[in-house]
Amino acid sequence: MENKKRLVIVGGGACGPKAAARARRLDANAQITMITDDIYVSYAACGLPYYIAGAVRARSELMVRDAAAFKKISNVDVLLHTTVDSIDRQGHKISVTDTDSGKKYDLAYDKLVLSTGASPVVPPIPGIDLKGIHVLKRIPDADEIIELMAGSASKKAVIIGAGLIGMEMAETLVDKGFKVSIVEALDKLLPAVLDAEIADMLVKYVASKGVELRLGQKVTGFEGKDGQVNKCITEKESFPADLVILSIGIRPNSKLAREAGLEIGPFGDIAVNDHLQTSDPDIYAGGDCVANTNLITGKKVFVPLGSTANKHGHVIAANIAGGDLTFPGVVNTACVKVFDFNIGRVGLGEKEAQANGYKAVTAFIPGLDIPDYYPGHRDVTIKLVVDGQSRRILGGQGIGTGEVIKRIDVLATAITMGMNVDALADLDLAYAPPFNSALDILHHAANLVRNKIAGRIVGAMPAEVKEKLDRKDDFVLLDVRSKSEWNTQRIDAPQTQHLPERHLYDEMQRLPADKEIVTMCERGVRAYKAAVTLKNAGYKNVKFMEGSLSAWCYECYRNPGL
Amino acid sequence: MENKKRLVIVGGGACGPKAAARARRLDANAQITMITDDIYVSYAACGLPYYIAGAVRARSELMVRDAAAFKKISNVDVLLHTTVDSIDRQGHKISVTDTDSGKKYDLAYDKLVLSTGASPVVPPIPGIDLKGIHVLKRIPDADEIIELMAGSASKKAVIIGAGLIGMEMAETLVDKGFKVSIVEALDKLLPAVLDAEIADMLVKYVASKGVELRLGQKVTGFEGKDGQVNKCITEKESFPADLVILSIGIRPNSKLAREAGLEIGPFGDIAVNDHLQTSDPDIYAGGDCVANTNLITGKKVFVPLGSTANKHGHVIAANIAGGDLTFPGVVNTACVKVFDFNIGRVGLGEKEAQANGYKAVTAFIPGLDIPDYYPGHRDVTIKLVVDGQSRRILGGQGIGTGEVIKRIDVLATAITMGMNVDALADLDLAYAPPFNSALDILHHAANLVRNKIAGRIVGAMPAEVKEKLDRKDDFVLLDVRSKSEWNTQRIDAPQTQHLPERHLYDEMQRLPADKEIVTMCERGVRAYKAAVTLKNAGYKNVKFMEGSLSAWCYECYRNPGL
Repeated sequence: MENKKRLVIVGGGACGPKAAARARRLDANAQITMITDDIYVSYAACGLPYYIAGAVRARSELMVRDAAAFKKISNVDVLLHTTVDSIDRQGHKISVTDTDSGKKYDLAYDKLVLSTGASPVVPPIPGIDLKGIHVLKRIPDADEIIELMAGSASKKAVIIGAGLIGMEMAETLVDKGFKVSIVEALDKLLPAVLDAEIADMLVKYVASKGVELRLGQKVTGFEGKDGQVNKCITEKESFPADLVILSIGIRPNSKLAREAGLEIGPFGDIAVNDHLQTSDPDIYAGGDCVANTNLITGKKVFVPLGSTANKHGHVIAANIAGGDLTFPGVVNTACVKVFDFNIGRVGLGEKEAQANGYKAVTAFIPGLDIPDYYPGHRDVTIKLVVDGQSRRILGGQGIGTGEVIKRIDVLATAITMGMNVDALADLDLAYAPPFNSALDILHHAANLVRNKIAGRIVGAMPAEVKEKLDRKDDFVLLDVRSKSEWNTQRIDAPQTQHLPERHLYDEMQRLPADKEIVTMCERGVRAYKAAVTLKNAGYKNVKFMEGSLSAWCYECYRNPGL
Repeated sequence: MENKKRLVIVGGGACGPKAAARARRLDANAQITMITDDIYVSYAACGLPYYIAGAVRARSELMVRDAAAFKKISNVDVLLHTTVDSIDRQGHKISVTDTDSGKKYDLAYDKLVLSTGASPVVPPIPGIDLKGIHVLKRIPDADEIIELMAGSASKKAVIIGAGLIGMEMAETLVDKGFKVSIVEALDKLLPAVLDAEIADMLVKYVASKGVELRLGQKVTGFEGKDGQVNKCITEKESFPADLVILSIGIRPNSKLAREAGLEIGPFGDIAVNDHLQTSDPDIYAGGDCVANTNLITGKKVFVPLGSTANKHGHVIAANIAGGDLTFPGVVNTACVKVFDFNIGRVGLGEKEAQANGYKAVTAFIPGLDIPDYYPGHRDVTIKLVVDGQSRRILGGQGIGTGEVIKRIDVLATAITMGMNVDALADLDLAYAPPFNSALDILHHAANLVRNKIAGRIVGAMPAEVKEKLDRKDDFVLLDVRSKSEWNTQRIDAPQTQHLPERHLYDEMQRLPADKEIVTMCERGVRAYKAAVTLKNAGYKNVKFMEGSLSAWCYECYRNPGL
């Protein structure tokens, strides 16, 4: 008996159960105990928005394994409803409380794993304790939100924070018949995830679904009646609502570690080395309570995800069993579905790249996920960020109803391996018409970046063109689309001129030689080609509008007869 | 005038038009001529099976750009209906014939591009010239096949060759009401593409669609009446059919190059260096008429694809304009949709890896593309091939109704960059329930390979287990699924025993200590865990059946009441 290694795991989310099950496979004799204050262990917390939406048929489908199964299959003792009060590192034991009975006792460990997760931030503002204001993190939260939704008289909801959970909940609430307002303190949707161009497309789309957006506004408090919220108040206005979802972020649960004197990181995370060992070599930590290394910058980042937590569990179990496994880090991959839009990002955004000292060269390309002649093709818009010096791929983002996430996963792999833009342009991606065009949108993005680095072309983002129009700059916005496209929809400004690409060679002499010309079309492809043609013909100051009309999130003329 | 570079491009498929358009963008003054014997230029030949199927609404949708547009937009002269008869390398000119008028003339060039494509192999067997026997390569082929389909009295078709085109056409013909037989000389479907385990799953699936398969049979001839085929004859039997699709492969069109004394490669390809330059520095070649370098083995391979041809066009145009671009090579990525199955492969197959001297360690994992609790999840089965010595990823294959191709593209990127299996296990792929499980099936595959390399587990492929059963080996096939699963369907053999994973700890003592035990379940996950548990408990000779029942393509008991 005394030879059995005593392994105690605190936390039953993703990292803990993974570590427990694998620890058992690597060590038949260890005495393994997993402790959680929750009433469930090992469930798919990321599925909760879909459980609330009714897309997950039964709660049991979210359960990976219950406590009894852990005992039966992996011989792991699971203590539910149990809090860990303190760690006695010297004595190699922890003090726990059974929250049902109130009983307190000690548990000895040889190795301890802290997978204590993270908790939603609840701001200390007036009215925050009113009924109807809720976070979403665990199964009981989901149950309570379902109940609040059912009991809502006004069917008006406010989501505070336009992060991943907030955006997922927006869709659910709209589907359930709620009038939804999103209030976000920063100036865009998914502010930690998306660059402005992509976020702007999301704003336009979400607004088209009837969601009211308030960006750059801070919530200052709530009002209610009989203890039930009925109003959400911001710096500028107020929204009637009897349901408020708080999703302004999560913070690592590191109190236990902090009180035990373990080193704490810059995000309040439990500091770990690349073996996921804390400052005490007998204590490991993983999952949402730790930070990760960004593989591009080498800096620590706090991007808690169930996927990473599972990998942590694997690494921790291996090291506890005497292995020598490291977890190198992440490339900040994230994705979310918002109504029918698939949205993803990886690596560094453009500004993030600049802030890290890179010379960010970007491509912003709307396109299709498969050939236009193949049925079922859908929109995909990609932004690629490359370091103009080293040519290394730094990041990418995508949005659209089409197959966005495949491209994000390709970029995640490319960035992890330090791929440069030239290798991306030549990358042998799978091609057949049901799955892709002969050249993937990433190939086009890579080629555009290469042409920009070589100085062959200069791009202008839609926001930049909008500013020029608003400033009444003296330039030509040259629309090279066909006449029928022009008649259907166009950017109506004094600077706009129409000259279809087919007539460009013959009629370009009517364009002013001395003015700046910005070409545009539907998605940017023809605009790009037209800009090169003009440049080759001697026009000195030519740009093309990246994304063109597809990414134009501002007013434009639409033929009312069509 | 005399300063203009004269660029002549032979071939109007994918590489030629790409090279022409880009050459124009890089050189405003060049005199560019593109020549094709076809009546069309620059169309999506890969879309032809879908055009025949009626999925592409109009032929015009397949057209990328017509000859007039090439002139108008890119100032490229396109000569249709024109054959190139010979190259005078010394004189820097070619002899051409206008096939409409019969007129012959010479064209001078400074740089010449050969993008002559490839032609379907037509075997010289009796009856091959009968009406109703057709290849599919160009638009007129598609038109003629559509006509033959409409005129078919028997609605019986034979497809000769189970390659990519053959499999695509099988679906189309079944959808159009044909009774389809596929005859393939090699012993599996997609023989150049898939390993046996994946091909076996395809055989089972395609057979379920009513397609008659004859593998390992050679076609010896055809019989007909009044010049119209009515029977396809193989070594062993004959098939009535008035429509025969020949898809036994394609060969590079290199006659012109060969006759001009250019170096020819091992596949009859026009030999090129990594700049896509032939043995004559003023002549470039790209597209289906050249071979490519396999980036894993460094060896030349012939894998003609529209995707690669487009990249060739880009590289050739750059080099002709004075650039210094190389095309490094391919990783043999291929994909095809067959009915509702998505099928892909990349890198080396298992036997191919062994033949190249690698110690191939594989994982074969059926799973789901997204979590089982999320609506719309579908099947994906992945086979991963890793070099057990260097731990480098060598190849991967996938099949299923789910998101297979995303995983193939990730592996294509990983293999291109020389990623090892450990980095794959930690790869930060996009995770949210609508898009993936917390751990991707590739993560599971990577971990299985790592466990195999470490000697923690031994796998047995379904075919291996089938052989053991057929040989009446004395072993235990231990099914660890639940009782209800067992009652629904099982492998009914004297060696089979049932012991659900939940009871394994308590009841394993009833298993023989001295016999080989092969565990199995539905997909292999529980079988894997059970095998580890048994091994840890002291059982010496334990394996788990990879893929288990999901990949079992042989007879098994199914409860007739269910």
